Amino acid sequence: MTTEKNISNLPQSDDFPTERVILGKGAPMRLDCGVDLADFPMAYQTYGTLNADKSNAILVTHALTGDQFAAGINPLTGKPGWWTTMIGPGKPIDTEKYFIICSNVLGGCMGTIGPASINPETGKPWGLDFPVITISDMVRAQVLLLDELGIETLFSVIGGSMGGMQALEWAAAYPDRVFSCVPIATSAYHSAQNIAFYEVGRQAIMADPDWCSGRYLEEGKKPRAGVAVARMAAHITYMSETALTQKFGRRLQDREAVTFGFEADFQIESYLRHQGSSFVERFDANSYLYVTRAMDYFDLAATHGNGVLAAAFRDTEIRFCVISFSSDWHYLPEDSRVIVRGLTGAAANVSYVDVVTDKGHDAFLLKEPEFTNVLGGFLDGAARRRGLA
Amino acid sequence: MTTEKNISNLPQSDDFPTERVILGKGAPMRLDCGVDLADFPMAYQTYGTLNADKSNAILVTHALTGDQFAAGINPLTGKPGWWTTMIGPGKPIDTEKYFIICSNVLGGCMGTIGPASINPETGKPWGLDFPVITISDMVRAQVLLLDELGIETLFSVIGGSMGGMQALEWAAAYPDRVFSCVPIATSAYHSAQNIAFYEVGRQAIMADPDWCSGRYLEEGKKPRAGVAVARMAAHITYMSETALTQKFGRRLQDREAVTFGFEADFQIESYLRHQGSSFVERFDANSYLYVTRAMDYFDLAATHGNGVLAAAFRDTEIRFCVISFSSDWHYLPEDSRVIVRGLTGAAANVSYVDVVTDKGHDAFLLKEPEFTNVLGGFLDGAARRRGLA
Repeated sequence: MTTEKNISNLPQSDDFPTERVILGKGAPMRLDCGVDLADFPMAYQTYGTLNADKSNAILVTHALTGDQFAAGINPLTGKPGWWTTMIGPGKPIDTEKYFIICSNVLGGCMGTIGPASINPETGKPWGLDFPVITISDMVRAQVLLLDELGIETLFSVIGGSMGGMQALEWAAAYPDRVFSCVPIATSAYHSAQNIAFYEVGRQAIMADPDWCSGRYLEEGKKPRAGVAVARMAAHITYMSETALTQKFGRRLQDREAVTFGFEADFQIESYLRHQGSSFVERFDANSYLYVTRAMDYFDLAATHGNGVLAAAFRDTEIRFCVISFSSDWHYLPEDSRVIVRGLTGAAANVSYVDVVTDKGHDAFLLKEPEFTNVLGGFLDGAARRRGLA
Repeated sequence: MTTEKNISNLPQSDDFPTERVILGKGAPMRLDCGVDLADFPMAYQTYGTLNADKSNAILVTHALTGDQFAAGINPLTGKPGWWTTMIGPGKPIDTEKYFIICSNVLGGCMGTIGPASINPETGKPWGLDFPVITISDMVRAQVLLLDELGIETLFSVIGGSMGGMQALEWAAAYPDRVFSCVPIATSAYHSAQNIAFYEVGRQAIMADPDWCSGRYLEEGKKPRAGVAVARMAAHITYMSETALTQKFGRRLQDREAVTFGFEADFQIESYLRHQGSSFVERFDANSYLYVTRAMDYFDLAATHGNGVLAAAFRDTEIRFCVISFSSDWHYLPEDSRVIVRGLTGAAANVSYVDVVTDKGHDAFLLKEPEFTNVLGGFLDGAARRRGLA
């Protein structure tokens, strides 16, 4: 395992503590677009201890704006990782029982190669010369990571949102290397509405003159306004209408009456603006383009089933637990039912729970007791069947 | 009635055929923000003939991006007006029975005063010096227009989306001047989610350097990219997820396979980009800011009922027909039910129909037989009660 320093695609610093490995050494990785990627860095974190027969590994796959710091403390923010509700001692993804791996996705901006990385041929950031990647490519790179770690089979692959797409891709493409699979708040394909929302975000970024046709890093600029608008538009889809009403309603921001102007009179405006402006500091604009594009291209039935989702899961031995949230309108419960129907069409071993909550898509990142219980129960049961004490 | 030419706020030309009147002559109109507006132009169109006792007038109120050309041919586009499905001989809003008035809203950009109009004090376009207006202000100006036309009482006020807000405002503020009221696909207040979506649009426009802090007209520029992104974001909310899936799904745009790039691979992307770029040609960016802000500020219960919606309708004699669309997620059927509950709390005369359709919010502009029948039936019945043959 190589420790690669001075990677360019880190948001705040080029030298933060994370595990890193160089993949595609000797044998380059062929991307779906046809480009070969060689000697590329992938950043990851692990939690817990790998057991002697290497049978207790769980791959946690992150969402669009997530990273490898799923548990513990994120060294860049000093705050808890994004899934500390689920991962830790005694938690459903129990660090005392399992060896948990979480890697930054291909195309990301937290240490894995992406458009902000240096293109060795030019010595400059890749920008839009970076090859367009897919969810399949992200998973291919994760497979290489597991090979490096000497792990043949995952006890489980678990992810929400785009993480769920990766989990499904693992199940369809590498069924012999996965014992159980938990796709959460996700879909087997991007719908027209999903594509539409991310296209708005991409257009907002590309419309920002400081995007500089993708060369903003070379120009010493940052498309702040465009990225902020993209984040604001996406963020609305992560919360339910009910949650927005409960959390903000029409309450005013630090004022007694509206100001008859375009300042943030309403709390929801102030909140969204903050979401937008803070996101700029922690995420690379071009990564946003590439990772959303990978989601748009995701269509498991087309890629693995010749258009039939059940065919993508033919003869699978994996145990599935599909979880959706009743108020999620980003990836609808119906999207999860499509997955369940596909699995049922393959007579697969599948449980499905639609967690009743008003928290919307973001519920998978929040404390939601029924969700916690379902995931914990499934993993406990699967662990017994796997022979994990 | 004065015919005012050379109004500056016309999108393509300063001399297109429309009726115009100068309002606030002698007695300026006091806006909610406290500013007095004097001698300001309002553009409008009429269809059909006013009867002898002036009892057959219908005010049709338009939505955010609508205009006064509701029926007939729009002289600027050469295409049918935006509500020819509803207005015309033998149609539900029958031009052979009724005298229909439709005016461009205050703050608009089709001949009524708005931020693109010339500020007489500076000789330059108002830009952000234009006072922030409200739905109440829009209706106040319509009242002045009716006064000019010598019409004391409206047989009906009918509008969808923001037009429905104006219809509700008429009912609450001028109950003695309205016989019947048809709020369609609307809400008695803007929810946090509504505010959020329009705030994204405003931020997209204001982030565009060609917006020039609102002075783009003086600078000879146009915030094209920002307006396009704003329109794209809003447009998604006008269609249901089902409609997007049926109309576009994941179908590709003039290609056999994805291109691994950021062009419009998908039809939905191509469609949205077209919606965005064509909107720039027909709508003023600052008008978009002002009119969306007016909607955000709309809260009928707060303005007219001290927080209680039923109180806003106390003792009303108006006959109401509230119409929603089952798949509308921009203004939800629940928003209409809130209106109905408020009216019921005032023991008002109210019918409510939730039209089952998968066309989403845009259904009010489309051919939707149940909707046509409901509106036609209600108007026929109301006309008999009004003594209109």
